[in-house]
Amino acid sequence: MTTLSKLSCEACSTGAQPLTNDEIDSMLFKLSGWELIIDSDIKKLKRQFHTEKYHQSVAFTNAIASLAESTNHHPQIILEYSSVTIIWWTHVIHGLHKNDFILAAKTSELFKSD
Amino acid sequence: MTTLSKLSCEACSTGAQPLTNDEIDSMLFKLSGWELIIDSDIKKLKRQFHTEKYHQSVAFTNAIASLAESTNHHPQIILEYSSVTIIWWTHVIHGLHKNDFILAAKTSELFKSD
Repeated sequence: MTTLSKLSCEACSTGAQPLTNDEIDSMLFKLSGWELIIDSDIKKLKRQFHTEKYHQSVAFTNAIASLAESTNHHPQIILEYSSVTIIWWTHVIHGLHKNDFILAAKTSELFKSD
Repeated sequence: MTTLSKLSCEACSTGAQPLTNDEIDSMLFKLSGWELIIDSDIKKLKRQFHTEKYHQSVAFTNAIASLAESTNHHPQIILEYSSVTIIWWTHVIHGLHKNDFILAAKTSELFKSD
């Protein structure tokens, strides 16, 4: 996971192919704590992070929002009292790209360093 | 709606009763743009607010988080690229309290004044 979190996202355009099931299985193996979900036929990566206080949830939300802006790739963020759920997928290809795994790994790193 | 948004929340404890269906109908009538949803048997108020830019979505999320902290009542906030969805309910009574309608109205006011 550490290695994945150090990678940079590649440019991803409409023509790019989503990862295959085998590629997803292989990358998911490197990504601790994340689950593969299928939402409206779109494969996505989801993880819920638990906090002790609301201000920690808000700070983590803002940290992920900054990561999203810096990479121009925006996850769904569900902010609740003592948890933040992050869901990554690549809208333009309606599925998962390597970038989503890189950003999921970066998300976990940001949570650890909070 | 304006009147509702000017009210203050009352203290709400475990023993408080959720609003009845008639009370909900009556208060929902005063609350433009919000829908009643039932999620895991719990009645909640939901509204999606659309923005043009991500930084507006993030700023609105933080405004609602501040409202939540100031009233010690925390909604679910779903932050996406060009929308923020807010869901209010009262956890301790597993349903809707008058406070949820007041905070929904305040949420709409905050969006307008952004």
